[in-house]
Amino acid sequence: MIAMHPSLATAANPVFLGYVYTCLVLSLNLLALWVSSGAVRAHSGVAINPEDGARYGAPVRELDPPAVARILRVHRNAEAAIYPFLILGLVYVLVGGHASIAIPIFAAFTGARIVHSIVYLRALQPWRTLSFAVSLLALIALMVAILVTVL
Amino acid sequence: MIAMHPSLATAANPVFLGYVYTCLVLSLNLLALWVSSGAVRAHSGVAINPEDGARYGAPVRELDPPAVARILRVHRNAEAAIYPFLILGLVYVLVGGHASIAIPIFAAFTGARIVHSIVYLRALQPWRTLSFAVSLLALIALMVAILVTVL
Amino acid sequence: MIAMHPSLATAANPVFLGYVYTCLVLSLNLLALWVSSGAVRAHSGVAINPEDGARYGAPVRELDPPAVARILRVHRNAEAAIYPFLILGLVYVLVGGHASIAIPIFAAFTGARIVHSIVYLRALQPWRTLSFAVSLLALIALMVAILVTVL
Repeated sequence: MIAMHPSLATAANPVFLGYVYTCLVLSLNLLALWVSSGAVRAHSGVAINPEDGARYGAPVRELDPPAVARILRVHRNAEAAIYPFLILGLVYVLVGGHASIAIPIFAAFTGARIVHSIVYLRALQPWRTLSFAVSLLALIALMVAILVTVL
Repeated sequence: MIAMHPSLATAANPVFLGYVYTCLVLSLNLLALWVSSGAVRAHSGVAINPEDGARYGAPVRELDPPAVARILRVHRNAEAAIYPFLILGLVYVLVGGHASIAIPIFAAFTGARIVHSIVYLRALQPWRTLSFAVSLLALIALMVAILVTVL
Repeated sequence: MIAMHPSLATAANPVFLGYVYTCLVLSLNLLALWVSSGAVRAHSGVAINPEDGARYGAPVRELDPPAVARILRVHRNAEAAIYPFLILGLVYVLVGGHASIAIPIFAAFTGARIVHSIVYLRALQPWRTLSFAVSLLALIALMVAILVTVL
C-alpha cells in the first residue's frame, strides 16, 4: 500500500498536477465525442438495436449512418491514443519525471488531440493527419522520457 | 519513484481499497462480456477470420451475426465508460480523495455498469438508457470531485 | 497527494520497475498495430473518409478491405486485453505485490500478447487461440493476486 500524505500541497508536485488536468481534459474529450455519437444517431432516425427501432419507430440497420460512423471513428481514434497516453503519463509521474519534460509533452498531446477531434469531425485535411502526427510524437516522447528516467 | 510502505494496512486507506474492489469487479464485467462474445460467435456457426472458417467448416462473413454484434456493442460501451472511470478513479485516490465521496461514486458506477450490461444483453429499455445515465453521472461526479480536490 | 521520493532508486522496487517495462512494451505493441493499420489502408487504395478519397483519388467504402480489417481486429483484441491488464498491473504495484508473483505474470502476459499479435496477423491457428488463452490466464492470475493481497 502506498503512503498517502493528504496534507502535501498539490503545488509540491507540478508533474502530477499537470497530469491531473491532462486527465480531466482528455476524459472530457472522450466523453463529448461518445455522448454526441449517441445524440446524432438519435436524430438520424436510424436504430442499431431492434428495441430502439421498436421504441422510436425507426428502421433498424446493421451499420450506422455516415455522420454517426464518422463520430465513432473519431472516438475510436481518440481512445486508441488517449488510454495509452494516460497510463504512460501516470507512470511518468510515478517514476519521478521532471516537470520541464512532462508539461510540454502533456500540453502538446492534449492540444493535438482536441484539434484532431475537431478537424476529423469537420473532415479537414491535412489538419487531421498533422494533429494526429503531433499526438503520436508526444506519445513516443513520453515513452522515451520514461525509459530514460528508469535506465 | 514513489515511496512504498508495504507494511501500511490496506484498511488505513478506504478510498484505495474501494478502488481496488471497483477495479476488480469492472475488469470482470469487461472480461465476461468479451469472452462470451467469442463463445457465442463459435456457436453461431459463422467465422470472421478465414482461418477459423477453414478450421471449423464455417462460412466466413465480414460482419458478425446479430447476437454476437450485440455483445460486442455492450462490450464497446463498457470499455468506453470503464477505462476512463478506472483511470480517473485512481487519480482521485492519488489526490487524496475522501471516502465519503469516493465510495458512493464507485458503488453507483459499478452497480450501474453491471445493470447496463445485463439489460443491454436482454434488450430491455428504458433500463439500458437509465443505467447508462447513472454511470455517466457517476463519471462526471468523479471528474468534479477530482477538480474540487486539486483546485 | 502521494509523497514523491525521486531519490529512491528504482531498483528498490522491482515490481514497479517490471511494470514500467511491461507498460512500455505493451504500448509499443498497441502503437505498432494501430499505425500499421493506417499504413496498410493507405496502400490498399481504398478510403473510409470521403475527404481522403478526394485527396488521394481513392474509392470510398463503408468497410475496410480484408487486410486492414484484420489488423484492426488484432488491435481491438490487443486493446481489450492490454488496457485492463495495465490498470490492474498498476493496482498490484500499489497494493505492494510481490516480485516473485508479479514478474512471471507480467512476462507471461507480455510474451503471449506479442505472440498473439504476430500469429493473428499471419492467420496462424491454433497459435492464436493458445496465445490468447495464456494472456487471459495471466490476466486472471493478476486479479487473483490482487484479491489475495488485499483480503
